[in-house]
Amino acid sequence: MKPTIAVIAPGEMGAAIGARLRSGAARVLTSLQGRSAASVRRAAAAGLEAVDDAELMQAEVFLSIVPPDQALPLAQRFAALAGAGGRLPLYVDLNAIEPQTVQRVEAVIMAAGGRFVDGCIIGFPPGVEGDGPTLYLSGAVGELGQLLSTHGLMTRVMDAPSGAASALKMAYSGISKGLIALGASMLLAAERHGVLPCLLDELGQSQPELLQRFQRAVPSMLPKAYRWAPEMREIEAFIGTDWPESGIYAAMARFYERIAGLDADDASFQRLRRPGGERS
Amino acid sequence: MKPTIAVIAPGEMGAAIGARLRSGAARVLTSLQGRSAASVRRAAAAGLEAVDDAELMQAEVFLSIVPPDQALPLAQRFAALAGAGGRLPLYVDLNAIEPQTVQRVEAVIMAAGGRFVDGCIIGFPPGVEGDGPTLYLSGAVGELGQLLSTHGLMTRVMDAPSGAASALKMAYSGISKGLIALGASMLLAAERHGVLPCLLDELGQSQPELLQRFQRAVPSMLPKAYRWAPEMREIEAFIGTDWPESGIYAAMARFYERIAGLDADDASFQRLRRPGGERS
Repeated sequence: MKPTIAVIAPGEMGAAIGARLRSGAARVLTSLQGRSAASVRRAAAAGLEAVDDAELMQAEVFLSIVPPDQALPLAQRFAALAGAGGRLPLYVDLNAIEPQTVQRVEAVIMAAGGRFVDGCIIGFPPGVEGDGPTLYLSGAVGELGQLLSTHGLMTRVMDAPSGAASALKMAYSGISKGLIALGASMLLAAERHGVLPCLLDELGQSQPELLQRFQRAVPSMLPKAYRWAPEMREIEAFIGTDWPESGIYAAMARFYERIAGLDADDASFQRLRRPGGERS
Repeated sequence: MKPTIAVIAPGEMGAAIGARLRSGAARVLTSLQGRSAASVRRAAAAGLEAVDDAELMQAEVFLSIVPPDQALPLAQRFAALAGAGGRLPLYVDLNAIEPQTVQRVEAVIMAAGGRFVDGCIIGFPPGVEGDGPTLYLSGAVGELGQLLSTHGLMTRVMDAPSGAASALKMAYSGISKGLIALGASMLLAAERHGVLPCLLDELGQSQPELLQRFQRAVPSMLPKAYRWAPEMREIEAFIGTDWPESGIYAAMARFYERIAGLDADDASFQRLRRPGGERS
């Protein structure tokens, strides 16, 4: 029998995961309450069934795939819906949050009488590049890994307590999204100093793999900067403010906030949209 | 006729550049005043002639290759030596300093009646990996590029004012040395959270080129962290503190200061010496 999975997911990743589960023969529900027009379009395109809150809570599994700063508010909304009693979906937090935020989310779910699994998503959305992402799961995973992989998602169950999947995400993202912050910062600074063409030439010769990465990933960062900023704050907390390196990510959060606030006709925005200069 | 070049260079890069010039049929002088035993050994192994200050000033070219925080003090020492009058070597600053620091160094040299060229070094020391580094030169370069390339160094003369070579170095180094700070920070944080083996596995699968880079470059960073710290401060100033991303490099400076201060038996030091975990 088809399992029913609720995906609360305003973005590209969540919609694509919902679509993959659906093509993997699961029934996939979502809520469109308070969503942007873009999210409504994405959910429809992905074939997700928009239902009311009562029906949402009939699902077996509830996947939270939202920007990091919405992870706790979503759990609080779930807890409020759970108030009527009865069996609740298993709550799976797949967001880019650090282990202490995971604990806060978990505490909200447990207090509402729910069951909780910590997870994270590493990789591109299904259908964007490669085979789709890997979902890491830690804590009391039970049959969840099996269920999700049967219905089309690559999963990896960690032999580790709740929080480990999110810790892995923080470390991985600190490298991959951190690198994009370095590239974008240095492209902008090099241009201000009049040496951008030289920098691109030198990178092309001595660091071609980094140049290619910047040319692909810096433009695609622009529409995501609004959620990368809170993700950097999570990484700052993941490191711990006793360690000086936490300040790297505090500054990256401010950088991504600045980028997220740029108008599309701002010179910095234009530069980052075409990191190869006028040639691309 | 053999040109005479003075190289003031306490480190591996400077000694290797001196050795390359020497094998390229130049006479290479150095000063051992105030140097560590390691620097004295390196200079001797590279075949550099240690001379007194008066003879040093007879060279045609004077290359400054020191940690960033010693660039200005070395220029001041040169200016003091220049006091007696007469023809001075062309002063070439090859250090990882930002354009405003270059201006300060240049002003000291000009006030002493000297001539100045801004340069930078990108790549590994000659003999370490690949063909050796490229020396970028900007400003009033004259015949200097020709001279250095004739005697064994790869040079690239930029059609740009003094400061451009150093600006290029800042942007390049902000990417390459910044990336190592991200990798080292995340290896340490992942270990504190018990997920280092998972991180290494995931990087090995999805980012093998970054994992290989960290495994090679994080251990070799440890003895250089003392000079990477002031280099990060230069990059902070290169960006300008009006831009939030300058804080990334301020924090990296503090991180590299912390690493430079670690005892070899500290757990963080041990971890960074073997980023592949116990397996390597």
